Amino acid sequence: MSAQLLRHAVPRSTAARFALRTMSSSASAVAYPRPHLIPKSGTYPAGWVAGGLASGVKKDGLKDLTLVASPNHPITASAVFTQNSFAAAPVQVSKAIVKEAATVRALIVNSGCANACTGEQGTKDAWRMSREVDAALGGGGERGAASSTRPKTLVMSTGVIGQHLDMDKIVAGITQLTQNVGPAHDNWLSAAEGIMTTDTFPKLRSTVFEGDYRMAGWSKGAGMIHPNMATMLSAVFTDASITKPCLDAATRYAADRSFNAISIDGDTSTNDTFAVLANAATEGAAVIDDLESDAHRLFRDRLTQFAAELAKLIVRDGEGATKFVEIHVKGAKTFADARQVSSTIATSPLVKTALYGQDANWGRVVCAVGYSGVPVTPEKVNLHLSTPAIDEPLHLFKNGAPFDTDEEKAARILEHEDLKLEIGLGEGSEEATMYTTDLTHGYITINADYRS
Amino acid sequence: MSAQLLRHAVPRSTAARFALRTMSSSASAVAYPRPHLIPKSGTYPAGWVAGGLASGVKKDGLKDLTLVASPNHPITASAVFTQNSFAAAPVQVSKAIVKEAATVRALIVNSGCANACTGEQGTKDAWRMSREVDAALGGGGERGAASSTRPKTLVMSTGVIGQHLDMDKIVAGITQLTQNVGPAHDNWLSAAEGIMTTDTFPKLRSTVFEGDYRMAGWSKGAGMIHPNMATMLSAVFTDASITKPCLDAATRYAADRSFNAISIDGDTSTNDTFAVLANAATEGAAVIDDLESDAHRLFRDRLTQFAAELAKLIVRDGEGATKFVEIHVKGAKTFADARQVSSTIATSPLVKTALYGQDANWGRVVCAVGYSGVPVTPEKVNLHLSTPAIDEPLHLFKNGAPFDTDEEKAARILEHEDLKLEIGLGEGSEEATMYTTDLTHGYITINADYRS
Repeated sequence: MSAQLLRHAVPRSTAARFALRTMSSSASAVAYPRPHLIPKSGTYPAGWVAGGLASGVKKDGLKDLTLVASPNHPITASAVFTQNSFAAAPVQVSKAIVKEAATVRALIVNSGCANACTGEQGTKDAWRMSREVDAALGGGGERGAASSTRPKTLVMSTGVIGQHLDMDKIVAGITQLTQNVGPAHDNWLSAAEGIMTTDTFPKLRSTVFEGDYRMAGWSKGAGMIHPNMATMLSAVFTDASITKPCLDAATRYAADRSFNAISIDGDTSTNDTFAVLANAATEGAAVIDDLESDAHRLFRDRLTQFAAELAKLIVRDGEGATKFVEIHVKGAKTFADARQVSSTIATSPLVKTALYGQDANWGRVVCAVGYSGVPVTPEKVNLHLSTPAIDEPLHLFKNGAPFDTDEEKAARILEHEDLKLEIGLGEGSEEATMYTTDLTHGYITINADYRS
Repeated sequence: MSAQLLRHAVPRSTAARFALRTMSSSASAVAYPRPHLIPKSGTYPAGWVAGGLASGVKKDGLKDLTLVASPNHPITASAVFTQNSFAAAPVQVSKAIVKEAATVRALIVNSGCANACTGEQGTKDAWRMSREVDAALGGGGERGAASSTRPKTLVMSTGVIGQHLDMDKIVAGITQLTQNVGPAHDNWLSAAEGIMTTDTFPKLRSTVFEGDYRMAGWSKGAGMIHPNMATMLSAVFTDASITKPCLDAATRYAADRSFNAISIDGDTSTNDTFAVLANAATEGAAVIDDLESDAHRLFRDRLTQFAAELAKLIVRDGEGATKFVEIHVKGAKTFADARQVSSTIATSPLVKTALYGQDANWGRVVCAVGYSGVPVTPEKVNLHLSTPAIDEPLHLFKNGAPFDTDEEKAARILEHEDLKLEIGLGEGSEEATMYTTDLTHGYITINADYRS
């Protein structure tokens, strides 16, 4: 048990030890855990530059400021935001920009301070971050707190709630960062590092759709009991040429099938944001401008799959997690029913601690199905446990009663990191999938000590 | 941190070490933690006998069978049961008995095996437990599995789901137990011990309402993240004289204001039950038979307060808990709103881990208010933190912004076991209170290892 605790505690302190303690935008020499999840190279969308550095907002000297810009091509932007009543200042600012501006300038993100519950000063600070980036990138916008021009750089923040940003550090960081962004893999990796909080590794992906366009993106977020309670940030950058209505539709569609599949409706942090930015820098490509076209459906599906990859990386890095768990509910009367049952299981602390203990405690799963609020017929309920590494699933619960509860078989499955619980309700043909983690000592350690 | 872990881990193993390993009904020599919460004596209601022993269902030799009976006075009984779709066999049996029988014979409880998800055999076993007690107490009812007479002893079970009861042990235990019950404090303490699962101490209370009647009762249950997910059992026994309609009304009223104040609606285990049994053994007392009478209201309020005591003991013994937290939401438009906000805070793992870390992380509390689904106006929200040991509460959050975030003051409050979070919404005049615990390493240890 202490070994499992250490598995996650050590990388964090290792990261802190290796951290570059001066302001720097070079890709860090941090030795991350699970290096196989971090790309060593990538082909990035045309026209974009990225970077990240340590501005000093984070006390431990780790990177805390990230900029992605498209200096020569105006950006079409879409985003979905948290529904939390206490939506943070950067959320309000970015929401206004996405709504009002035809194109945006760039995206600036800081980590270490969420700029949430910070009142009027917080709103001013978020607008100033946007304005400072506009000015530093040149071509319009005045610097300083008092400008009257509406800036056009999107802003995201993540970290501790209720503290004001140290704007001196942020502004100095922005000045240096705008001079140190670039199009290379190392720049993008730095950008993915600058948004991390309790994440143990940077989450960066890039892909080329041959003959069409490219996408790059990063994500962050870690608290995985109720997935959306820790701030989830993600952005996807593409050189595709797409109109705002088409991008809006694709963004909403993708969010529902990626980040919302690791989330509980309404259960969101003050800062959650998923943004998609397109700069049309691909040469000679046709514009995606028809919601009913094959080109739009293709873009939408590609974005969905790409976003799902970024979402699953968040689950894989759930705070203290030792398991990656897919919860697939089928045979429901409606999608809403399937979603409610899968959410209930995915947020059951008793199910999650059992998975951590590698205990085939199907009783806790069935119990969660029973109190989900969805009417079920016990005699129709089935439960299978499986892992991709072993062909045959274990049929733990059959038609309302325990069935194949072979503890040895279960133990062989449960020792794997990737697990799948499949619940059949036998009431209809709708289904839903949620991704979650186990609940561990590591989670408690991380969250009991977060601010200290 | 490891010290806090040990605080709860050690007593359990101590308990196991001191346990009487033979079948015995004497009050145990177990050295429990927090002895101040366990009464050393009591005055119990007239006509009742109680007892508990180790039948061998629990592998560790601890008590696992409890009987409370009223040999010479018929019992009027009321109960509220879990809403879980997978309601366990004993729930179905007790529900039928309470509904159909004018009076009941006794209450039998086993721990270690929940007899849930056990199909037809489970139902047969639960009925047989009832029948065996009836027969052992004498005066009607045949023994054995095949009797056709409907027995009249209420049944409760708690423990692992999906395993069949070892009926040989249960039946032998019942035979011995019926010969070893008694009216003394030690008998009642044994009864409270026989229902424990992950509880660290027996929860027993008794009280005398001078000139009127007496009440005794016990409770059990421990998993406190979503409070109702661990089985909650409780029963109150009185020598008051009360009709069934009056007892039904009082039981429902009391449950709503006691056990449901530590619970989330619909979020219940397969076995949860709260029963109230009255045997009218007080001599010459007036019958409580009018719902509108002062006598009924007095009984109802006394029962509510008594049940609340038993409910709070469950919170105080929350699995791995180091804090007892009262969450008081006021200024809501409706009671339902107040309840929803307090429930959301009470089930937030981030709030609960912060309390464990003695971290005045009001941001997590405010965040939970924000995603509760209840519309709030950030500028009207206030949050106070306090402990009974210190007069002045700390006004952490005032009208939508952090206010008195004095970390030293907060630390002095947070080092106490009893904490109170008071949230003012400023929208109306309704209020609600929930009781909960922190979320700790102890919880993970207990629940990851429960079956092994």
